[in-house]
Parts: sequence; structure tokens; C-alpha cells
Amino acid sequence: MTATVCVMCDKYGQSGGALHIVDLELSRAFLHEDQFFPGYVLLVLRRHVTELYELPAPERATLMEEVSRVAQALAGIFRPVKMNYELLGNLVPHIHWHLVPRLATDPALRSPIWTVEHQAVPLAPAAARERIETIRRALV
Amino acid sequence: MTATVCVMCDKYGQSGGALHIVDLELSRAFLHEDQFFPGYVLLVLRRHVTELYELPAPERATLMEEVSRVAQALAGIFRPVKMNYELLGNLVPHIHWHLVPRLATDPALRSPIWTVEHQAVPLAPAAARERIETIRRALV
Repeated sequence: MTATVCVMCDKYGQSGGALHIVDLELSRAFLHEDQFFPGYVLLVLRRHVTELYELPAPERATLMEEVSRVAQALAGIFRPVKMNYELLGNLVPHIHWHLVPRLATDPALRSPIWTVEHQAVPLAPAAARERIETIRRALV
Repeated sequence: MTATVCVMCDKYGQSGGALHIVDLELSRAFLHEDQFFPGYVLLVLRRHVTELYELPAPERATLMEEVSRVAQALAGIFRPVKMNYELLGNLVPHIHWHLVPRLATDPALRSPIWTVEHQAVPLAPAAARERIETIRRALV
């Protein structure tokens, strides 16, 4: 799969855009467009690689430090009962992490997010900007 | 939470047992008791820690090398369309990875495993031993 046909490369291949949070060395963080789970962030590897084990070890270590750093920042802001970290790629096989704080107010705190039926919660632009700014500040 | 009340410490705190695959430096691999997804493995951190970001960086890097190594071994054996890597802990907040090869025969290849309704597929002891031995050999 080349960059031109990968949805992840197309949609998240550049910084900027309404949901962009920050560029890290190897990845870019974006606020997930559905904020039913407050603080849900996508961390997308900048280059197109499918599997974690395909990365050279130093790159894998750096990526995982970025995963950890973003997760810790989200935990500091949203005070979740538990953080969820998922690398699936079943729809788009380009490494991207679902980082999801599971808050005490979650309707199904003990279940994976995928089984929690809900209506999507897109934020109004001002609310999205505020949440993004809060996360950005926590990452400095 | 102390080790004595953690299900993960109780159930996976020792090597051995019918589903034990291998002890790595920081983690232990076990065949998941439900093999509806063939090759589904749990990789359990030996010591009791809840969040990835609570590990010291060198320990996180080593753990992720173990995750990667097991995932690559599973991919070599089961030839999945995609590997899934999940660290949730919503039920048991002790770091453990769900490593799930998603095969071409999967009934819902584009969906997270948690949404795939199915009857559990426990293996008969001989079949489990064979699968475990195959994974063990791929990890040498």
C-alpha cells in the first residue's frame, strides 16, 4: 500500500487541521472526532508502516515513549480510572494508537470501547480548540 | 491493589499451567483459553503495574520488545491479515497485552475482536499443547 491510497496518510499525514494536537518526533496526535470518551486521542505514526514489529527497535522504543507520554498527559488531565491503548489497524493498516481515558462517568467502564453503543459526540469548534489546547499544554 | 487481590497476579503470576507458553525477561506469555481467534495470546507483565507510563523507560522498552517479538512469532505462524495489540486492563488493572492475529478466515476481519459474537473455543489438551509448542519454537 502506498501513501497515496492509505486513508491514514491522506487524513493524518500532515499537521494542522481542526483536530491536530501536536507533532512529535515520529508521530502526530489528533483529537478523535468522536469525544463520547472525553480525551480520546489518535496517535498516528508519521511514516507508513503496518505492524509494530516491522519498525527498527530504536524507532519502536521512541514511538512507545510518545505513546506513553501522551497517555500520561491525558491521564493527568482527565483522571481516568484506566487508560486504554490499542493498536489495531483492521480498517486502515497504518500504525495508529487509540489512546482512550476511561473516566469514572463512563457508562461501561469495564468493557472495551468498541462494545459501548453511543451516539457520536463531535465537539463544537471552540470546545475542540479548548480541549486540544489543554492537551497541548500538558505535553510541553 | 496488592498482588494478593489481583486476578492477574493470582492466575498468571507463575510459569507453568496448561496454557503457559514462555517466560520472557519481564513478561509471561499464555495461550488465551478462548482460541476462537487462533493464536490469541496474553502477554502478562510479571510485576504488578497498572499503566504503561508508570514503567521506567528502559523497562517499557524491554516490555515492548517482548510484545513485538511475540507478535512477530505469531504472525510468522498464523499469517494474519493484521495483528491486533491491546492493553486495556478495564477488568484487571495489571499490565497485560492482548495479541491477536486476525486471520483471513476471521468472520469480522475489519472489526475489533470484542464486537465479534462467538462461542468460546477452548482447545482439547493435546491441541493446546501442540499450539503452545509451535509458538514456543517460533520464539527461540
